[in-house]
This record gives sequence, C-alpha cells and structure tokens, in this order.
Amino acid sequence: MKARIRITLKNGVLDPQGKAIQNALSGLGFKGVEEVRQGKYIEVDLASTDEAAARAEVERMCRDLLANLVIEDYAFELSAG
Amino acid sequence: MKARIRITLKNGVLDPQGKAIQNALSGLGFKGVEEVRQGKYIEVDLASTDEAAARAEVERMCRDLLANLVIEDYAFELSAG
Repeated sequence: MKARIRITLKNGVLDPQGKAIQNALSGLGFKGVEEVRQGKYIEVDLASTDEAAARAEVERMCRDLLANLVIEDYAFELSAG
Repeated sequence: MKARIRITLKNGVLDPQGKAIQNALSGLGFKGVEEVRQGKYIEVDLASTDEAAARAEVERMCRDLLANLVIEDYAFELSAG
C-alpha cells in the first residue's frame, strides 16, 4: 500500500517559509493571496496489503519519527499500490 | 478558496532525504518499508471564490515559483474556505 502523508505546522506556530513564499508570490504580481503555510509531504510504499495494519503502522511512523507533535499535525491517506 | 499543493520529485530523481527517512524507519524497527519519497506540501488561501480562476492562478503559481519543473511534479486540490 502507498501512504500519502501531509505534515503541517499547527495553527499559531510561526511559519517563516510560508511567509517568504507569500511575499515572493506577491512580488510576482499574484493578488489576493491571504495566507501561505508550508509543510512536508511524504510518500511511503509499504509491503503490507492489509489496510488496518498499514494504517496503524503509518500512525506509529508519524508519531515516532515523521512529525514533531509539539508543533506539527499530520494526516494521511492510504491507497492500493 | 484553499489550495492544497503537493510538490514531488519526478521519478528517477535521487531523493536523499527520502532515503534517510527510510533508513531511520528501518532503524526504528519498521519492516516492509519499500520506498520513501519526500516532497513539499503548501497550503495557499486565496481571496478568489471562483474555482476556475483559482485553478488557473494556482497553476501559474506552481509553474512560476513553487515547483522546479525540471525535477519536480506538482498536483493540487481546491476546496472552499
């Protein structure tokens, strides 16, 4: 199975990278950009074909390694192949 | 509208960050991790409420600034609010 994981900064955590992107977009002439937040996107290919087991494993990966739960949230979807 | 943009390395482009994550997961005892690829995730809040206009604008943002089309692909979804 393939897990598509999005890791985002929690609301209220300053995001200087997002702010830099917002400024750059504004400098390029894009109007009406109200906010930009940058996060991480991670794709993990798992040998497991059992969705419940894969879901539990990806949860643990996020908690143990991928996300810093003090300042970040995570979300993911699983799909076959 | 809110755009959720995923920027990923094209197939065939080396991804040392993804490889480092894969090694770390393996070191933590996760079995059956076949591949890990790291990308970027960017959320953009747009003042625009017209979906077609927002879609065209986000396309341009990706091409002009957010993605390096030589080595990266992008994909995004739009949602209200």
